[in-house]
Amino acid sequence: MIKIGIVGGTGYTGVELLRLLAQHPEVEVDVITSRSEAGIAVCDLYPNLRGHYDRLVFSAPDAGRLAACDAVFFATPHGVAHALAGELLEQGTRLIDLSADFRLSDAEEWSHWYGQPHGAPQLLEDAVYGLPEVNREAIRQARLVAVPGCYPTAVQLGLLPLLESRLIDLDRVIADCKSGVTGAGRGAKVPSLLAEASESMKAYGASGHRHLPEIRQGLVRAAGAPVALTFVPHLTPMIRGIHATLYGRLTDEPGDLQALFEKRFAGEPAVDVMPAGSHPETRSVKGANLCRLAVHRPGGGDTVVVLSVIDNLVKGASGQAIQNLNLMFGFDEMAGMQAPALLP
Amino acid sequence: MIKIGIVGGTGYTGVELLRLLAQHPEVEVDVITSRSEAGIAVCDLYPNLRGHYDRLVFSAPDAGRLAACDAVFFATPHGVAHALAGELLEQGTRLIDLSADFRLSDAEEWSHWYGQPHGAPQLLEDAVYGLPEVNREAIRQARLVAVPGCYPTAVQLGLLPLLESRLIDLDRVIADCKSGVTGAGRGAKVPSLLAEASESMKAYGASGHRHLPEIRQGLVRAAGAPVALTFVPHLTPMIRGIHATLYGRLTDEPGDLQALFEKRFAGEPAVDVMPAGSHPETRSVKGANLCRLAVHRPGGGDTVVVLSVIDNLVKGASGQAIQNLNLMFGFDEMAGMQAPALLP
Amino acid sequence: MIKIGIVGGTGYTGVELLRLLAQHPEVEVDVITSRSEAGIAVCDLYPNLRGHYDRLVFSAPDAGRLAACDAVFFATPHGVAHALAGELLEQGTRLIDLSADFRLSDAEEWSHWYGQPHGAPQLLEDAVYGLPEVNREAIRQARLVAVPGCYPTAVQLGLLPLLESRLIDLDRVIADCKSGVTGAGRGAKVPSLLAEASESMKAYGASGHRHLPEIRQGLVRAAGAPVALTFVPHLTPMIRGIHATLYGRLTDEPGDLQALFEKRFAGEPAVDVMPAGSHPETRSVKGANLCRLAVHRPGGGDTVVVLSVIDNLVKGASGQAIQNLNLMFGFDEMAGMQAPALLP
Amino acid sequence: MIKIGIVGGTGYTGVELLRLLAQHPEVEVDVITSRSEAGIAVCDLYPNLRGHYDRLVFSAPDAGRLAACDAVFFATPHGVAHALAGELLEQGTRLIDLSADFRLSDAEEWSHWYGQPHGAPQLLEDAVYGLPEVNREAIRQARLVAVPGCYPTAVQLGLLPLLESRLIDLDRVIADCKSGVTGAGRGAKVPSLLAEASESMKAYGASGHRHLPEIRQGLVRAAGAPVALTFVPHLTPMIRGIHATLYGRLTDEPGDLQALFEKRFAGEPAVDVMPAGSHPETRSVKGANLCRLAVHRPGGGDTVVVLSVIDNLVKGASGQAIQNLNLMFGFDEMAGMQAPALLP
Repeated sequence: MIKIGIVGGTGYTGVELLRLLAQHPEVEVDVITSRSEAGIAVCDLYPNLRGHYDRLVFSAPDAGRLAACDAVFFATPHGVAHALAGELLEQGTRLIDLSADFRLSDAEEWSHWYGQPHGAPQLLEDAVYGLPEVNREAIRQARLVAVPGCYPTAVQLGLLPLLESRLIDLDRVIADCKSGVTGAGRGAKVPSLLAEASESMKAYGASGHRHLPEIRQGLVRAAGAPVALTFVPHLTPMIRGIHATLYGRLTDEPGDLQALFEKRFAGEPAVDVMPAGSHPETRSVKGANLCRLAVHRPGGGDTVVVLSVIDNLVKGASGQAIQNLNLMFGFDEMAGMQAPALLP
Repeated sequence: MIKIGIVGGTGYTGVELLRLLAQHPEVEVDVITSRSEAGIAVCDLYPNLRGHYDRLVFSAPDAGRLAACDAVFFATPHGVAHALAGELLEQGTRLIDLSADFRLSDAEEWSHWYGQPHGAPQLLEDAVYGLPEVNREAIRQARLVAVPGCYPTAVQLGLLPLLESRLIDLDRVIADCKSGVTGAGRGAKVPSLLAEASESMKAYGASGHRHLPEIRQGLVRAAGAPVALTFVPHLTPMIRGIHATLYGRLTDEPGDLQALFEKRFAGEPAVDVMPAGSHPETRSVKGANLCRLAVHRPGGGDTVVVLSVIDNLVKGASGQAIQNLNLMFGFDEMAGMQAPALLP
Repeated sequence: MIKIGIVGGTGYTGVELLRLLAQHPEVEVDVITSRSEAGIAVCDLYPNLRGHYDRLVFSAPDAGRLAACDAVFFATPHGVAHALAGELLEQGTRLIDLSADFRLSDAEEWSHWYGQPHGAPQLLEDAVYGLPEVNREAIRQARLVAVPGCYPTAVQLGLLPLLESRLIDLDRVIADCKSGVTGAGRGAKVPSLLAEASESMKAYGASGHRHLPEIRQGLVRAAGAPVALTFVPHLTPMIRGIHATLYGRLTDEPGDLQALFEKRFAGEPAVDVMPAGSHPETRSVKGANLCRLAVHRPGGGDTVVVLSVIDNLVKGASGQAIQNLNLMFGFDEMAGMQAPALLP
Repeated sequence: MIKIGIVGGTGYTGVELLRLLAQHPEVEVDVITSRSEAGIAVCDLYPNLRGHYDRLVFSAPDAGRLAACDAVFFATPHGVAHALAGELLEQGTRLIDLSADFRLSDAEEWSHWYGQPHGAPQLLEDAVYGLPEVNREAIRQARLVAVPGCYPTAVQLGLLPLLESRLIDLDRVIADCKSGVTGAGRGAKVPSLLAEASESMKAYGASGHRHLPEIRQGLVRAAGAPVALTFVPHLTPMIRGIHATLYGRLTDEPGDLQALFEKRFAGEPAVDVMPAGSHPETRSVKGANLCRLAVHRPGGGDTVVVLSVIDNLVKGASGQAIQNLNLMFGFDEMAGMQAPALLP
């Protein structure tokens, strides 16, 4: 049993960590902090957890108690992990940050997109980008993991085989992404109201979105060369799920694309390459730490279309965070996340 | 490990049995039958199960293979269990029937509501009504369990404390129930289309519904006297969940209703009495084998209002079926169903 | 053409007034005020109105401009109409208040439920309760109309025939009501987020709700005697619509209930009594100024069940407000509201 | 007043024709046919129409009665219009076909995609493709109009300015389209159930879809040259609406794209070019005969992204059909369709 701390546990990634960790045989959640809900029992805010965390109470942030944990998750807005990470790392606590604070290796690019100075550039060289399908060995040793964002996870996993084998034109990659509303968090904003977001579909950030540099960084690493990406996210009237539809232009006869994908992800516990001709549904991964992929080549032409689905709160956030934890502490990589998706 | 058979596994209660049994440490699903899908792999029909039942294939009904199982679930339309139960029971297989075939103890009443003769009246005396909160000891010994319907579960659990203590007027009990669309099954019917059922609310069966006699039978047993029940079900635009709003007229000063409910369900693993003043949400039990209850007495008057929520596919069907299995075979009563509800 | 002003036009009842008035042949919207959006074009906030109100801009509240209108709608939180009504009435503007400010004839009861002193008790004797099916003649002459709330409209219309004819026990009337989320307004509140309210059902205010005194007042007027009402509202995962399920106990053999309802509402342009045996759906009135009703007597017993559906934003708010306007100014009673409901 | 006939009026495009025509000042629906519902009153099937078509009854198909109409709409599966069109045209009835029967000018291509011989190739030269923004003058004179499909409408309108001015590489045009479930019609199919399609997102037909040749035909006409199109449709959990996200590669410095779009659609009553930087929502056109467009150039690069939204049942079907009718008979082009979209 290791002791877990969670910073900023009132949002959707926080409650999802608790939901999944309740099934984890090797951990105990010791501390969960929240500025706004300090003193409130976790189960009063999230009644689905009644019977699982009956004595757990949100506490005000307290570096001392967090430092006594073996691992601490940050489920916070950007900037918070910057402020706390250094102190906790010094005391030997291993950190798993679900925010964007350590995802970009370039502090200036971070500053540009987040409109404030990077708060802990000195930690960037220790930060490991927590995509196990790319960085598994580095994650095992990491003291500080930056968990990928939801869009970046769905897009990178779908494009990795094509980029690593340099099968597509790096100059024109398109990621048309559709996300459920939990991607926007639990903040009380008018556009996230059921009355506003239900029964409608819209794009947003078509001219530029914060996830773009993170995705591009990952694609460049996979390709070993610059990649020009057009990324258009859309808000979809559902609670959970991301569907990434990825378009690339084949530069050469690619051989058997299905086999390429199956080989690339053979043995990956959190990636499922569907049979040829499949159209994965987001609900097929609801609640599960999985990315399901399908690859199409319409009309046998020179365009390849990859369909990539994840649950944004699981493989796109809290589940992937726990997958990182499991690697860091030598647990079964999918511990806590064995249950099938909830369907229907 | 015991061997499990499932008859009629293609509907929503079938896939839900598989989802939950995938997490059960003591069972193995050996046979799953379907007339319409014989020969199809389970995971091709339900991709959420990929990775869990990769070798399980729907087979045509085969009494021999089923009889080789320790326990068989019927997840079938009414009438099917009537036809098969006798033969399987003779060979020592224990049966858990999710259909309505053995729920009513009176074969004639069954015939009246289902419009056909009862196919196995001789088995009725062996059939145990599988509501663990009422019949736990009988279930442990049962060879044949009739799993309660979804509405009957939500209504009975909410009214039990009031009826057993005879606190309310038995002449005017009202159950206003709201159900998600999976209550209507996976059949392709126009009223169940998203385009028809979404963004709308309607009552149905206001003049009489098949679940009425089952509910009444349970209420009568609890009260030990006739009960006049008005039951109006409503179709709600959501996938899972039942919300029963129950109205009774107090015949006397009832004392502490909250304490009455807490005492009645103390130690019950699948019933959660919420704190006074609560309004349980159906999503707080999504995917979980739980009934959450709250009791109100508006304005301190002579009306008591009980709010009762379940997931119709879990505590209202497949979860309760497994709870019965666990009792019959001496497993932990909640084995396979330890995970918190999926929220949000 | 008359000149219309709207106070507080940024909420859902405001935009719904604009949507309906766009089809009204006799009116022109001259002023629309909003503290928060002053200076913003209406169509920038509500793009569905592009092409209809292209020159209309939210202005800061300005009593002078409002007083120059023939009629002013208040689509405001409670308290605002109290403050402005007197001044506008003095200048001859006729007022239609969609808020709760003038619905209760008893200023003290208002204070009790709204937690503040009544701001204009001297105007109460002039205020007409704007339910045309009860007060049509008074409305024609009114200077100040209090538009009924959404729940009160659905419940009163469903119970009027039974109360006026004294067919049911006034001691135990139950209104189990289900509302879409626009009933909670456009405020940014966590419980109204799609991620919170979708795929779930819950009761609220089971121990007492602000609409209770308004409903009770209406029922008492109809019955001419005290009425004991239990009212439980529920939040339903849809945008628009209220479904009221009303339960009464027949005190005598009632004769032909269907005929009673048809006769009571004969000629009413905004009430549709459905054929016997019907179950009206909320979507059948989506966008329309209609209440559809059905009456049931389950099993021929002594309980009568009335099903009453409205669109909470139309017959439950803005449509009914315009119906009042039409009566006050001698227009066709349904002017602006001739279009069928939007289905599917 | 002209007399209207509707063939196959029980589906969603049929009821939508009725909804819109109820507001049309110049028409009367005289005949509506249905094989399956002959003898049923229209308002019994579609209660939203109660009060509007109270005497209209579905009749069995009857060429004589249809031929007595001035105009007949076909809201039928493919093949039906082929069989009936010749006879009706001979008798002088003008036809507006919402099915795919006359959309492709090449009978062989039609046969290829629909798997049966074309039933009326001799009529193809008379058939006018009913996209008013391209063919307005021809439509005015037409005897037989083929109303464009829903996806083809959204995609063509979004790409017309770019293709007509040859600004993009015709070799790699991508249309990523998201549709609500009414696009799949009112047929009772399992994948269209609320329990299956809600809370999920999926692509379909990624390797080829029947709307592809129609879209391509339109794009080729606009460009005056071959166009290579990748078209991936997605099923979205909402009732109405299509969101097309269109990607093109600029071959040259394009100048002011916003001005290009505004100029192309100046004066078009059914196309609304949104302000620069907009992200149109499908709900902004719910129930309205409108296409709203926005054009983006992310990062000022060489990719142009067009966002195009319509209501698939209105501008994507019945509304556009009526727009054609209005042109054919010299009515106001938007007669019957003046109401704003229903929002929220």
